[in-house]
Amino acid sequence: MINDKLPKIWYGGDYNPEQWEPEVWAEDDRLFRLAGIDVATINVFSWAMIQPDEHTYDFSALDETMDRLYRNGIYVCLATGTGAHPAWMARRYPEVTRVDAKGRKRKFGGRHNSNPNSAVYRTFSSRLAGKLAERYKDHPALVAWHVSNEYGGYDYSEQSEAAFREWLKARYGTLDALNRAWNTRFWGHTFYDWEEIVLPSELTEEWNGSRTNFQGISLDYRRFMSHSLLECYRLEYDAIREHSKDVPITTNLMGFYKELDYFEWAKYLDVVSWDNYPSLDTPVSFTAMTHDLMRGLKSGQPFMLMEQTPSQQNWQKYNSLKRPGVMRLWSYQAVARGADTVLFFQLRRSVGACEKFHGAVIEHAGHEHTRVFRECAELGRELQLLGGELLDARSAAKVAILFDWENRWALELSSGPTVALNYVNEVHKYYDALFAQHIEVDMVGAEEDLTRYEIVIAPVLYMVKPGFAARAEAFVQAGGTFVTTFFSGIVDEHDLVTLGGYPGPLRPLLGIWAEEIDALLPGMSNQIVMEREWKKLSGSYECGILCDLIHTENAETLARYGSDFYQGMPALTVNRFGEGKAYYIASSPNADFLQGFLGNLCADKDIEPLVQAPQGIEAARRIKNGTPYLFLLNHTGGELTTEIGSAGIHDLLTGEEVTGTVRVPAKGVRILKG
Amino acid sequence: MINDKLPKIWYGGDYNPEQWEPEVWAEDDRLFRLAGIDVATINVFSWAMIQPDEHTYDFSALDETMDRLYRNGIYVCLATGTGAHPAWMARRYPEVTRVDAKGRKRKFGGRHNSNPNSAVYRTFSSRLAGKLAERYKDHPALVAWHVSNEYGGYDYSEQSEAAFREWLKARYGTLDALNRAWNTRFWGHTFYDWEEIVLPSELTEEWNGSRTNFQGISLDYRRFMSHSLLECYRLEYDAIREHSKDVPITTNLMGFYKELDYFEWAKYLDVVSWDNYPSLDTPVSFTAMTHDLMRGLKSGQPFMLMEQTPSQQNWQKYNSLKRPGVMRLWSYQAVARGADTVLFFQLRRSVGACEKFHGAVIEHAGHEHTRVFRECAELGRELQLLGGELLDARSAAKVAILFDWENRWALELSSGPTVALNYVNEVHKYYDALFAQHIEVDMVGAEEDLTRYEIVIAPVLYMVKPGFAARAEAFVQAGGTFVTTFFSGIVDEHDLVTLGGYPGPLRPLLGIWAEEIDALLPGMSNQIVMEREWKKLSGSYECGILCDLIHTENAETLARYGSDFYQGMPALTVNRFGEGKAYYIASSPNADFLQGFLGNLCADKDIEPLVQAPQGIEAARRIKNGTPYLFLLNHTGGELTTEIGSAGIHDLLTGEEVTGTVRVPAKGVRILKG
Amino acid sequence: MINDKLPKIWYGGDYNPEQWEPEVWAEDDRLFRLAGIDVATINVFSWAMIQPDEHTYDFSALDETMDRLYRNGIYVCLATGTGAHPAWMARRYPEVTRVDAKGRKRKFGGRHNSNPNSAVYRTFSSRLAGKLAERYKDHPALVAWHVSNEYGGYDYSEQSEAAFREWLKARYGTLDALNRAWNTRFWGHTFYDWEEIVLPSELTEEWNGSRTNFQGISLDYRRFMSHSLLECYRLEYDAIREHSKDVPITTNLMGFYKELDYFEWAKYLDVVSWDNYPSLDTPVSFTAMTHDLMRGLKSGQPFMLMEQTPSQQNWQKYNSLKRPGVMRLWSYQAVARGADTVLFFQLRRSVGACEKFHGAVIEHAGHEHTRVFRECAELGRELQLLGGELLDARSAAKVAILFDWENRWALELSSGPTVALNYVNEVHKYYDALFAQHIEVDMVGAEEDLTRYEIVIAPVLYMVKPGFAARAEAFVQAGGTFVTTFFSGIVDEHDLVTLGGYPGPLRPLLGIWAEEIDALLPGMSNQIVMEREWKKLSGSYECGILCDLIHTENAETLARYGSDFYQGMPALTVNRFGEGKAYYIASSPNADFLQGFLGNLCADKDIEPLVQAPQGIEAARRIKNGTPYLFLLNHTGGELTTEIGSAGIHDLLTGEEVTGTVRVPAKGVRILKG
Repeated sequence: MINDKLPKIWYGGDYNPEQWEPEVWAEDDRLFRLAGIDVATINVFSWAMIQPDEHTYDFSALDETMDRLYRNGIYVCLATGTGAHPAWMARRYPEVTRVDAKGRKRKFGGRHNSNPNSAVYRTFSSRLAGKLAERYKDHPALVAWHVSNEYGGYDYSEQSEAAFREWLKARYGTLDALNRAWNTRFWGHTFYDWEEIVLPSELTEEWNGSRTNFQGISLDYRRFMSHSLLECYRLEYDAIREHSKDVPITTNLMGFYKELDYFEWAKYLDVVSWDNYPSLDTPVSFTAMTHDLMRGLKSGQPFMLMEQTPSQQNWQKYNSLKRPGVMRLWSYQAVARGADTVLFFQLRRSVGACEKFHGAVIEHAGHEHTRVFRECAELGRELQLLGGELLDARSAAKVAILFDWENRWALELSSGPTVALNYVNEVHKYYDALFAQHIEVDMVGAEEDLTRYEIVIAPVLYMVKPGFAARAEAFVQAGGTFVTTFFSGIVDEHDLVTLGGYPGPLRPLLGIWAEEIDALLPGMSNQIVMEREWKKLSGSYECGILCDLIHTENAETLARYGSDFYQGMPALTVNRFGEGKAYYIASSPNADFLQGFLGNLCADKDIEPLVQAPQGIEAARRIKNGTPYLFLLNHTGGELTTEIGSAGIHDLLTGEEVTGTVRVPAKGVRILKG
Repeated sequence: MINDKLPKIWYGGDYNPEQWEPEVWAEDDRLFRLAGIDVATINVFSWAMIQPDEHTYDFSALDETMDRLYRNGIYVCLATGTGAHPAWMARRYPEVTRVDAKGRKRKFGGRHNSNPNSAVYRTFSSRLAGKLAERYKDHPALVAWHVSNEYGGYDYSEQSEAAFREWLKARYGTLDALNRAWNTRFWGHTFYDWEEIVLPSELTEEWNGSRTNFQGISLDYRRFMSHSLLECYRLEYDAIREHSKDVPITTNLMGFYKELDYFEWAKYLDVVSWDNYPSLDTPVSFTAMTHDLMRGLKSGQPFMLMEQTPSQQNWQKYNSLKRPGVMRLWSYQAVARGADTVLFFQLRRSVGACEKFHGAVIEHAGHEHTRVFRECAELGRELQLLGGELLDARSAAKVAILFDWENRWALELSSGPTVALNYVNEVHKYYDALFAQHIEVDMVGAEEDLTRYEIVIAPVLYMVKPGFAARAEAFVQAGGTFVTTFFSGIVDEHDLVTLGGYPGPLRPLLGIWAEEIDALLPGMSNQIVMEREWKKLSGSYECGILCDLIHTENAETLARYGSDFYQGMPALTVNRFGEGKAYYIASSPNADFLQGFLGNLCADKDIEPLVQAPQGIEAARRIKNGTPYLFLLNHTGGELTTEIGSAGIHDLLTGEEVTGTVRVPAKGVRILKG
Repeated sequence: MINDKLPKIWYGGDYNPEQWEPEVWAEDDRLFRLAGIDVATINVFSWAMIQPDEHTYDFSALDETMDRLYRNGIYVCLATGTGAHPAWMARRYPEVTRVDAKGRKRKFGGRHNSNPNSAVYRTFSSRLAGKLAERYKDHPALVAWHVSNEYGGYDYSEQSEAAFREWLKARYGTLDALNRAWNTRFWGHTFYDWEEIVLPSELTEEWNGSRTNFQGISLDYRRFMSHSLLECYRLEYDAIREHSKDVPITTNLMGFYKELDYFEWAKYLDVVSWDNYPSLDTPVSFTAMTHDLMRGLKSGQPFMLMEQTPSQQNWQKYNSLKRPGVMRLWSYQAVARGADTVLFFQLRRSVGACEKFHGAVIEHAGHEHTRVFRECAELGRELQLLGGELLDARSAAKVAILFDWENRWALELSSGPTVALNYVNEVHKYYDALFAQHIEVDMVGAEEDLTRYEIVIAPVLYMVKPGFAARAEAFVQAGGTFVTTFFSGIVDEHDLVTLGGYPGPLRPLLGIWAEEIDALLPGMSNQIVMEREWKKLSGSYECGILCDLIHTENAETLARYGSDFYQGMPALTVNRFGEGKAYYIASSPNADFLQGFLGNLCADKDIEPLVQAPQGIEAARRIKNGTPYLFLLNHTGGELTTEIGSAGIHDLLTGEEVTGTVRVPAKGVRILKG
């Protein structure tokens, strides 16, 4: 439980009373009550208000808000306010603003504009966090700390350059080691002095955001930047912890956000929280996968849904409204996949600046007589009825999909073999094939304990980090099923190729080697032709993007390419290794293949679907003290039904016993207990 | 009349004898005479020639040109020459060049490169204007002053930053007022000192040209920049007026040019002039609308067509030739819509640099035996025959369409709800629907006196400035018909939302409120379904981009949405208000709907089409001393005919009496008097 | 012969032993031997290794490599290593790095980053070249010098600005001459002091890479930059020659690379060498044309194929594998068109940085048991068998196509008439029409002696440089056939229009003048309609992009436009001039027209195809001491046949006599001698 002060699914969201005149506050109180809101995230952007100059701290407005909220039965997720530094600070200490990747010194403006390696910024931000913790640590409204906001973006200042050199010294010890790791003999880039190293930017090695001449330095800079921002977070964390010993601390993450290694970050978060902003055309399974990833950051621990919009966004190209029922449906999707909170950005729509067209519980009309408010209030009532029953419930997936930020960076930085390869999309193809069959999945990091799973899938595991191959081998040795694909096992953590034949360290496990990698032009495809019928798989399936030209060593060939000069070479292989099996998929297959293939693997392992249900139903399950809670979410516009066999099952939302045919209304939700 | 020295439609254009050797001038004289040219715009880019260094002014070449032209019967529109500053000035006073939106200090080059807030630039440019006025104020050739050239572009220098702060102080008085207006509590951007304010650029709040974090500061910067450039113009204007008391002063505008608020500028122009550069695929009605806008800048006062090309442009992607007859046709289009001059850029094609492939009366061949020259000379003869008859004639439109630059800026700066919304395109949809029915329109600004009109249409009036709602109410109260659309009445002049329900201040007038605004994805559409047949309207019409979800208060619902979850909600409403009616169109409809709808409104007000004519005929009318002049312009490649009922009508170009069926040849023009 | 030490087609490529541990070298030796490799290009990026600081030069590793290679029977193409400067140099002398076109000072990184006008860079680079020459001039392995690597890119530093002013003073003598050449009276850009001139960049006159306000300065800057880089090359050349008197010196060019005038460069290369990187979808005729251009740089002298990939590239969007046989096929394509070497980039794939996915003879697997190695080794054996027989053989084309870099720059810098015009594409259309008919072509520069040819084709000869028109006239006078097209003869070498009627200086020769130039919108086309059947031409052919509206003077009209207002005006003309004919094609025709037209011209001149062969066969011929070698290259996936009439012909690769039907296998090669 995040905080036992409030033993239910928290409901509420971002609240910015400082943007409003006091007469509005009373109306806020009334409307929050009507909507069943019990948590407000406050102070996210209040730095300039609390600290109007270098030497003054004024907590009076915040005191008032904390007290008022508490009086009205609302708990507080208290932000440290460092999401954007004050204008006076940028003027007095220019070093606090960033330099961008184009080498341009930024001036005051926006957010994500604080130089993470500015000593001034670090001092001021952690000092503020400490003062807040000292003041509010015992406030009865306080239930969680929210450090800064949506950390992100990179910096290219001289402060970061100097810090980068120090980070490199610590990492490599000697320039020789660094020169080897970056292969600087290529293009004669050998460094003879640490001071010769300049950070990689458009002025040095990079262009177009993810193109680089030297993968080594660019990869390290991403690690370093993720680390620099994490240090800023940790400084605030420590400053809070000095005073506030027990209240959980988090910062809101952003799903598959590219620039930060969230598996590294999660180690320092008491609870993961994140902001979920799908658009009208985001695949439902993509949102599901993202929730599962956020749950996986801390090995299955429930997380906070920190932000979602009640109605529409402002920053998408086309900000469609959430259709009736969809806000509730997507809220339960989060809960089904591990969220113990349902929080919005925002409670009241702002009157000006760039987020004024972002949805809110209280819209510009200002009253409760809106569709959005009614839907929010209905969900608020429902969550009050649900109480704490689902809190802390966990998934019990036997299938894991591996996702790794460093692998992603390395893949995106790669020059060749193809620009068509998108790591997140490839991972999603595998997730979606399982999702469509209602099979539970955990999204796991490269350091996760694999022994909890029956099947581990590692799509496009281009970079194999130290120790992983041995752990994968042990997993399979003991009976596990391991799956990986084309363009895997290519490089080590420095992006240096493992020589001697791809997939390098995974070669013994997979029993194959890849001689060449063909990149297909747009419009080109090949086929995966099954050697023989294998349960759900038979005949031929389209594949594309890349085709590894592989040779089996110990592995058995299950399918072969159907065309081009490598027609007849293996396209799908399996290697028996100890008690388990390791599969290699040599190209990027279509959905039909993946559903059949993964269905077969699950059948082999007696992994059952959560439910037999038609397309359009999403199924997910949480388990608490042995009791399963099966979520059925209907994402379509018409009622759907499914059969459940067992007796003694109740619908948690209606209380009624359910048996035989379960009807799930359009955009509806059933939570079946038992 | 612009200047009674030359009481006819002026004919000529830009002339740059300084680019040529003297032996060419005699040939110019001969060819101008052949072409019937009587006005030359000179000295547009002569600053470097007249002022070769800081202390020297040399007018000898200009003296010679003025005298020569006058001797040859050609009057002069005399430019102040400040369209581009000299190279020596940029070298000696680097402050005169601009800093761009990316923060880059520009060096010498191009035009639109003078820092409008450079004291040096202001001093030198107004001094030059003054010296020219002093010298030539009584020259017999002089008929108009032409200040600088096509003012445009923004500057991001420190001089502009300092001036911006002063402008803000004058506008807001206190930082509290400014902080409120910009809603700086959002993202903690509160300013405690004027010096903390930095101008909005890619280094602060903006990106991609029209994206911003803070609409308030970005909107004010556009106002400030338009104002800064206008100040430069006014300094030259005042310097001229000190000596030259009566000769009209103008600067050439550019139609719907985005960066300057031409309604504000027009207050300081004695006569509006503009440069008309449609391409082969520009809709004819778009050019017509632009002429009408230029006429509307000074409430209907005739304007100068300052530039058009006789044949082709150079700066378009595909610079097609004007087909035979088109130059004449488009010249009369300008005249039909209020132009009292027909001027070209340029009289002789330049031999080098970026405009050498821009058309001219005298092409590179250098003689009169070209199609282009022949067409120019024919028009010259015709305009001599026309004499002064049409001068000062006015339109008598009863329908006005409102266009407002500040609304446009605010819409383009908006973050959400959709990138598909383009203000000028939306305005054009309404214009085009009236144009297709040969109904006269005035394009008017937000400050225009509405009582002159029967119908006022204000598409997407997102920003409602102080006083406008009351004037609109008074207009309708007195019997007027007012039309506005989705996404109107949202914000005030600071881009702060008018709370309590859209369309804010227009809500009483329209009798509806809008609860939500749905943005449609590309390819999506909805339908406007008529409640019942209403004259030209019945059944269902496609609509898209945005759909307001509105509720009627006092209004009557004329049509409803045909699909999606808001099927059945009002899509078209009318509110009886006093003696008049106010319509709200909740989405962006197709052309069929708009023609029917606007046709109905005109029928209700007994506003007749100028003529019953087929598509392809453009009709326009000017009236002078009670005599109407009906222009019929055939934009098609075949002859078209139309019927006119009344007797006593003459064709002004042929002199013949016209009755019954009027034939308009392909690309032809008729001007029917009486 | 490039160097008679190795009297055969050289076989090998780039080799970077410094990137590898010594234990790998022995394996390199073994594998090179297996592959039949006899030349290694080394030291290309070794500057930082050889010169670890300002005062130290360490040749020990290079000594070892040279000796080892020689011991193993491998000759060395020795690079000067200045392809990228060391990091210490960039730190100690910031002037050595470039400033980019956006005005941004670059820091250390990448290659193409040395400021060509930095005195420090020039001193250090030529000093290194001299030291290498002094040390290795008599090394028995040395067969060629390779200066720097793939010179390219422009610089915008203050050093280049100062050097540009000096270059301009030398070119123009006086500012008056410069002001005239650049037509600076346009937009009042007159310079009164040399110091006022700033180099053209995004901060002054240019934008989007090839857009400019002043063609004159932008064109001169391209000349100056090509010249500056050439000066750097020549400083190294001279430093080498001081010691090494006879060994040929080259630098590797890049085909149609835009930024350098290779005809100017070739004057200073002892032998042309170039890097050939077609992709899977590059038209075969485009690669052929590029080889022919490289051969034409030194008037037909055989060239070095310095780089090609054995398998795939890394820097294309989709890096497809070379299909089986294609590496051999394309190697012989180079030889067929004048290459006397077949060299790869690279011999061993690098382990890290951006080229690790670039193909190599020794792939990451590290052994010889790969398809790529096997194909390389087979070709190695074949080239050993071929020996020196083909060396120094020449083409004997009677048709020349003119290509001129200055014309290309001017065309790309032109503002108008259309963005659709691409010079290289237009040239390729003509080349392809001849290629498809197996007619030999030489690609020649504007200074080439035309009298060697029967037919000279100069597509889109926009810029006619001094003396060319007279030489073209003399060529036709003497019986030659000259062809040019729309948008030719427009400007002189300063991009100043030749007044009086296009095509200016070519007008007497062509007997026509062009009055107007129409640019077609995308999707628009016109037709070339033959007046009467003329051999292979009859009826109507599509044309587009630009349409010149021309009038015949002395010329005869062979075809007319089929539509638009210029229907019936001449579209194809011929002018009898002395003993020859000059043709003008007024628009850009389709391939059918061009094949017919050029076929007709060849027939008129009794120029026979090399062979009657089906599409898919490429034919090329080299002649040595009167003996012809006919290459037949089958680019398709199936066997093709062709008939040869004469007797006494042998296949050089198989030794067998060939008569009657010649079979060319899929992707196969025949070299027919006799």
